[in-house]
Amino acid sequence: MVETVIAGDFGGTNLRAALVSDAGEILTRQQIRTPADLPAQEIVAQVADLLESVKASDAAAPEAACIAAAGLIDAESGTVMVSPNIPTFRNLVLTTPVAERIGIPTYIENDASAAALGEFRFGAGRGARHTLHATLGTGIGGGIVIDGRLYRGAKGLAGEIGHIVLDPTGPPCPCGSRGCLEALVGGVAFARRAQRLLDEGKAPILAEIAANRAPTAADLSAAAAQGEAAAAAEIQNGGHFLGLGFGGIVNVLNPDVVTLSGGLLSMGELLLEPMREAMASLAYGPATDTPVRTSELAEDAGLLGAAAVAFERAGER
Amino acid sequence: MVETVIAGDFGGTNLRAALVSDAGEILTRQQIRTPADLPAQEIVAQVADLLESVKASDAAAPEAACIAAAGLIDAESGTVMVSPNIPTFRNLVLTTPVAERIGIPTYIENDASAAALGEFRFGAGRGARHTLHATLGTGIGGGIVIDGRLYRGAKGLAGEIGHIVLDPTGPPCPCGSRGCLEALVGGVAFARRAQRLLDEGKAPILAEIAANRAPTAADLSAAAAQGEAAAAAEIQNGGHFLGLGFGGIVNVLNPDVVTLSGGLLSMGELLLEPMREAMASLAYGPATDTPVRTSELAEDAGLLGAAAVAFERAGER
Repeated sequence: MVETVIAGDFGGTNLRAALVSDAGEILTRQQIRTPADLPAQEIVAQVADLLESVKASDAAAPEAACIAAAGLIDAESGTVMVSPNIPTFRNLVLTTPVAERIGIPTYIENDASAAALGEFRFGAGRGARHTLHATLGTGIGGGIVIDGRLYRGAKGLAGEIGHIVLDPTGPPCPCGSRGCLEALVGGVAFARRAQRLLDEGKAPILAEIAANRAPTAADLSAAAAQGEAAAAAEIQNGGHFLGLGFGGIVNVLNPDVVTLSGGLLSMGELLLEPMREAMASLAYGPATDTPVRTSELAEDAGLLGAAAVAFERAGER
Repeated sequence: MVETVIAGDFGGTNLRAALVSDAGEILTRQQIRTPADLPAQEIVAQVADLLESVKASDAAAPEAACIAAAGLIDAESGTVMVSPNIPTFRNLVLTTPVAERIGIPTYIENDASAAALGEFRFGAGRGARHTLHATLGTGIGGGIVIDGRLYRGAKGLAGEIGHIVLDPTGPPCPCGSRGCLEALVGGVAFARRAQRLLDEGKAPILAEIAANRAPTAADLSAAAAQGEAAAAAEIQNGGHFLGLGFGGIVNVLNPDVVTLSGGLLSMGELLLEPMREAMASLAYGPATDTPVRTSELAEDAGLLGAAAVAFERAGER
């Protein structure tokens, strides 16, 4: 039985690392600013240094490590194909040099997939068998747990739930299509909705909050919280589309539970109530009452996701 | 090693049964008209009689049986919850009385799920690890194979790919939603498209084919084959939507291969070419080149699907 692992969370702002117990307890943690603008090899060295420093800071003997990062990740070979947070990483094998430095098997995983397994093992998905996890942030990502194990698909891409089409004539998506779930209700899409309200002069409270700058999804949420009806309506409309998207995926996957994390959850019931309603109205037969649960891991979701993957992979050896 | 099983295929028109080898060879077969209008207990007796008759007709000693049927099926308990082909079956345990009659373990499975496993084991999905199967008929169903085993989801509903929403303002779907994949491009939807062409006076060849009756999807296909441009355009448009739907599901599931069966395949490349194109344009990263393969099992897809489930379940015991 593996008792402790090292978890790394390669975020856009911070690079965090922690020693995590098999109960999901964070025993010690450290973080640095994400060194995104350095040459790739220097970033790799900083990652290895940080993990080594965490390892050295505690008497526990971790038996595996995993780093979660955004982007196209080949978990099999430990390769970052492309990552939005680290532009210089292209087809870069991250795990080998880190493993050499810290002396234990090291893995890498897509952050949304890791989040799915983290919620399954330590959070809102505990006790389930099959889960669908969605990360609702700037973009919309996801991960799938089947029979209690992370499901990666044929090429490690499984869970890209932001790129199902909900409206073929809808707004363009960075992926090149139109009307993807992410293009309709991701953080960027909510920011665009907010800008439209300002352009149409329909949101005086929002105009005050976002004076002299482009409005964000958080601004839209703040305006709604302060009583701006037009802002609230945009969030509710987004929740409705989110529910139609999730309802379809629930019909395909029929999970025991849908778990959610990410910044958009700060929109609260304004987003979640219409989401649940649309999801239930679309879901088929007994799937109608598939529960939706929000993350219980808060700020540590990234680290605990990486830890969950480290435990799973260490257990497979 | 189980060498032979009995397969049953509870279709809308015929009830078929066969003795099937582990190589997918049909050793002997029998069929009767589907006795849909009898009381439930008499139907059960006819099913049991047919399977017993197949069993008695050959020296082989089958070790398990499985019956595939449309509808909401609880494979765990062997129960038909609701089936469109057998209205009197409601929450009816089919497997127990049949097993008592034929003396071997008997299972039941949703027909689209069985078809998925049949293609995986004997047909277009051979050699894959994860597959998505779609049945393109009057409705649109599907099934999922993960790690070489049929994936049923939390409540046996997995694979209901006809009920993802592609157009929230689209035509109503029998499921109660609007713009589901099935409502846009199932056989019924193509029949409605054909009727619209007739109403608009845009399809003289179709009008001749479907004189004095409501046009079907097959009529639309026949008209296109005879050079009716408007009919061909409807099929191509349907193929495009089908591809957008499948592309989204491929982004969620990332299967090795997508396999297809069902009557709409007679529309051929007119349907499949725009389908493949839209699917590839939406699919993400390396999933872009996910192959799409049409069924190799023809008329026996139903029986071989049921046989594949019987082999899998017998192997699990």
